[in-house]
Amino acid sequence: MPLTYRNAPLPSDIAAVRSLAEGTGFFRPDEINVAVELIEERLANGVDSGYYFHFADLDGEPAGYVCHGPIPCAIGSFDLYWIVVDKENQGKGLGLALMRLAESEAGSWGGRNMYIETSGKELYKPTQRFYEKAGYHVVARLPDFYDLGDDKIIYQKELI
Amino acid sequence: MPLTYRNAPLPSDIAAVRSLAEGTGFFRPDEINVAVELIEERLANGVDSGYYFHFADLDGEPAGYVCHGPIPCAIGSFDLYWIVVDKENQGKGLGLALMRLAESEAGSWGGRNMYIETSGKELYKPTQRFYEKAGYHVVARLPDFYDLGDDKIIYQKELI
Repeated sequence: MPLTYRNAPLPSDIAAVRSLAEGTGFFRPDEINVAVELIEERLANGVDSGYYFHFADLDGEPAGYVCHGPIPCAIGSFDLYWIVVDKENQGKGLGLALMRLAESEAGSWGGRNMYIETSGKELYKPTQRFYEKAGYHVVARLPDFYDLGDDKIIYQKELI
Repeated sequence: MPLTYRNAPLPSDIAAVRSLAEGTGFFRPDEINVAVELIEERLANGVDSGYYFHFADLDGEPAGYVCHGPIPCAIGSFDLYWIVVDKENQGKGLGLALMRLAESEAGSWGGRNMYIETSGKELYKPTQRFYEKAGYHVVARLPDFYDLGDDKIIYQKELI
């Protein structure tokens, strides 16, 4: 199947982001709404939004995406806000390729650090392993941040 | 001098926030712009903005303010985004009073944790001491987050 990576978001990506995020079974409705808000804001305000996307299209259909951007009020620190690959296309290297696209873009803009925040819950163990294999390490753990029993883990990777 | 605390932001607070933030000598222009964006967004979108303000007015003029709100995608965690008191009115307890107003409001809405992020730089030592005296403790330190040699410190306080 033809595989394309593109950094230009399309209006149809609003529905694609919702569908991809929902399809994982990972996210609560309020979290999915935040994912959708980011693509809406990017489409409305362009790069001024501070949100940069890369989509992986399989046979012309989005199979995954990454969203990252410079952290406001920080110099050289970027946040990988979202990375999603639909279930049937996981394990094909799309997630890692999307992550590398975000990292190299951030690095080319003077990024020194990429941060990723995620949940410490058992459900997220595969996610945590994915980040660790991709070269990220834990720099902080905030107990009960997302909810009681749901810690926030902050991962970081040096880009240079 | 008559001292009033109010939670209803006014259009004139856009200029007041800029002036208060600039007056401290602490913040870079890009940081001041973020402070101004928050009050603008609050005035444009009301409480849907997620930003809650308390202003301390001395003789009818804003002498300080606090801005806090629930952290998106987290249940019971709040962020104290900004707290500023102008130089000539520091040391009068306004900062602590504003902080307590934010904390009790967050607590009344089910907030369990209040977080504050600040710089680890020497310039911020008085700020760090202020947070520590107010009952906050360091839960994370991210090296070189804001810039090379400028760590991010994350403070936390349990509200219940």
